Amino acid sequence: RVNGDRLWDSLMEMAKIGPGVAGGNNRQTLTDADKEGRELFKSWCDEAGLTMGVDKMGTMFAMRAGEDPEALPVYVGSHLDTQPTGGKYDGVLGVLGALEVVRSMNDLGIKTKHPVVVTNWTNEEGARFAPAMLASGVFAGVLSLDYAYGRKDPEGKTFGDELQRIGWVGDEEVGARKMHAYYELHIEQGPILEAEGKDIGVVTHCQGLWWLEFTLTGKAAHTGSTPMNLRVNAGLAFARILEMVQKVAMDAQPGAVGGVGQVFFSPNSRNVIPETVTFTVDIRSPDQEKLDGMRAKIEAEAPKICAELGVECSIEAVGHFDPVTFDPELVSAVRNAAETLGYSHMNLISGAGHDACWAAQVAPATMVMCPCVGGLSHNEAEEISKEWATAGTDVLLRAVVETAQI
Amino acid sequence: RVNGDRLWDSLMEMAKIGPGVAGGNNRQTLTDADKEGRELFKSWCDEAGLTMGVDKMGTMFAMRAGEDPEALPVYVGSHLDTQPTGGKYDGVLGVLGALEVVRSMNDLGIKTKHPVVVTNWTNEEGARFAPAMLASGVFAGVLSLDYAYGRKDPEGKTFGDELQRIGWVGDEEVGARKMHAYYELHIEQGPILEAEGKDIGVVTHCQGLWWLEFTLTGKAAHTGSTPMNLRVNAGLAFARILEMVQKVAMDAQPGAVGGVGQVFFSPNSRNVIPETVTFTVDIRSPDQEKLDGMRAKIEAEAPKICAELGVECSIEAVGHFDPVTFDPELVSAVRNAAETLGYSHMNLISGAGHDACWAAQVAPATMVMCPCVGGLSHNEAEEISKEWATAGTDVLLRAVVETAQI
Ligand SMILES: NC(=O)NCCC(=O)O
Ligand SMILES: NC(=O)NCCC(=O)O
Repeated sequence: RVNGDRLWDSLMEMAKIGPGVAGGNNRQTLTDADKEGRELFKSWCDEAGLTMGVDKMGTMFAMRAGEDPEALPVYVGSHLDTQPTGGKYDGVLGVLGALEVVRSMNDLGIKTKHPVVVTNWTNEEGARFAPAMLASGVFAGVLSLDYAYGRKDPEGKTFGDELQRIGWVGDEEVGARKMHAYYELHIEQGPILEAEGKDIGVVTHCQGLWWLEFTLTGKAAHTGSTPMNLRVNAGLAFARILEMVQKVAMDAQPGAVGGVGQVFFSPNSRNVIPETVTFTVDIRSPDQEKLDGMRAKIEAEAPKICAELGVECSIEAVGHFDPVTFDPELVSAVRNAAETLGYSHMNLISGAGHDACWAAQVAPATMVMCPCVGGLSHNEAEEISKEWATAGTDVLLRAVVETAQI
Repeated sequence: RVNGDRLWDSLMEMAKIGPGVAGGNNRQTLTDADKEGRELFKSWCDEAGLTMGVDKMGTMFAMRAGEDPEALPVYVGSHLDTQPTGGKYDGVLGVLGALEVVRSMNDLGIKTKHPVVVTNWTNEEGARFAPAMLASGVFAGVLSLDYAYGRKDPEGKTFGDELQRIGWVGDEEVGARKMHAYYELHIEQGPILEAEGKDIGVVTHCQGLWWLEFTLTGKAAHTGSTPMNLRVNAGLAFARILEMVQKVAMDAQPGAVGGVGQVFFSPNSRNVIPETVTFTVDIRSPDQEKLDGMRAKIEAEAPKICAELGVECSIEAVGHFDPVTFDPELVSAVRNAAETLGYSHMNLISGAGHDACWAAQVAPATMVMCPCVGGLSHNEAEEISKEWATAGTDVLLRAVVETAQI
């Protein structure tokens, strides 16, 4: 079993870096706070006797050696970056849980055939640079390094320049490492485990996603002196598309979600009819056909809504992954570990995307989930208990050691 | 008749200060560009032999003396501040047209009983600091100086601090000046004059306005792992309220407008359900009952829309004026001037708010309007012809001189 107190202390220590405004964190990727978080994590890896490698996406790989020099490593990790108003556990638990796994292996003197590599993926959140899971996407060969380097934040700064700026461009080719297996511990970020009273989610699938970016173009004009029938109102078109996305998601129930998280009006002045509205749509489903059907419906309906108002509409897909089925053997290893340790468990489909989804493209992969209070995440009030964190990490230790020994 | 070329040159000269991004202007109130615009205007007033007074709201009063030391001045003006993406004429034509009036009076050696005061009101637009027509509102005694000084821009800077910063806090008590009459020349900012092929709008009324500010509070949560039925989605509530405002305005046709120009989502991240949405509503009508009815309807419906979604809703009125009826004698003076000069004309109701609306509370007041291309305003592409500007200023000169002589 792992040392839950040590795990919790590390979580609280990391949460001091990039504090939020309401008890959570703002440690967005490639910011100064991210840099500081990486340095703290590296110092812990050094203390644990791990060997650090960094790839050209800035992903950190901290290795505990195995017995067999030929054996591919078992990778265990997640991400240390957060949402702008994020929680203390989303991603962080997966990285520091993996660290606790090797710390416990050190304490217990556990030797494995395969090395174990604690991993911190760069830019999992995608809040600053879309899409999410950028580094693992390049690692899996789904996205190119050039594409990733060119991604821009809302201020126009590129991923490549910002990675350089914080000094974390590594020398390893991205994806050069081969994996024996990949495990990721994560908070559920949804309400099911807590509602069902289960300690452990055995993650069998992850739902697929489309991220769409809309630009609507109307005509700026005076809100007082422009008659209603002469307006070319991009803001009104936006409201109608948002409602339509909601309807498309509701029509796809159960097993789908959809919504708008981000919008910019321009010129955004109270007595000017909006000229340009840019916004993002996020749709997801574990069912490939349903997911693609939602996208098709939205892309068919939005231009019609706009045409009625004389507004121009352009749509770009900026993020995507297909629904994922995790590796049955690793899934069994997780279930068995929970069983052996006496933790209650149930199967789960991950609602959020994770680096494990891309890792699954190139290696056997799966995830372990633990509950979070009220299912709340991407919110500074995100909370978990030390017991939940410890149980998840116990299961992770057992599953990782089992896989690393064969 | 005025010197149209000189007027046009001054307009083009002023337009060089605070250039926009698409041929128009961004000379928002109390910015460095506003300061520069004020200095240029002051230098022109000095050249024309006018005496400058400035009040505690930074409003500039440039006086051409009259014959009778007891006679109250005729005020003629508008504003030099612009929208963030504003045109070259909105407000500016009224100030520089007034300047051209006194320049022409100087040229022609016209003497009047009453002084004539060219006026540049501070913060007419209200884009940076709500409400619009802030300085004329304080002048008319409708708003207090403390209230005005405390108004904040989106960055949290106050009107008072910014006025101090640009060095234009005058020593005159606001509203201490008494007016014999107030005239304002302005572009129509709507499509009617151009469509009807008329040179001059004789402005009989101005429609009333309510500016409402909404704050919706939902719950930030993950867009992927939060089931549809558990969302508390402030963004969805916003879309529904926007559509409702549109419907309220359409139901009030003809003779009413309504819409949303400004919105902020928070945290505004693509994979977070919006927690807070703040936005502005602008509703107007020349009919008092209709105007207040629209407000009542919106304030009744919005909380219902929010309640259905579990979203909290708060509403604050941040700007208001009742519909205005301009002074019949001054209106006749404008009509007679157009008639005498041989300009085609028609009666108009102003769709936009103007400083004349507040001046009308404390003095006989009216406006002269000239067409603008496509009715477009609050847009950098705002355009007028030199002929239109000249015709409007000719009419202004004649009406002002008539009023200043009796
Ligand atoms: N786990 C997580 O929040 N990932 C970010 C990408 C997503 O929105 O699913
Ligand atoms: N004329 C003008 O655009 N004034 C600003 C206030 C308003 O929106 O009516």
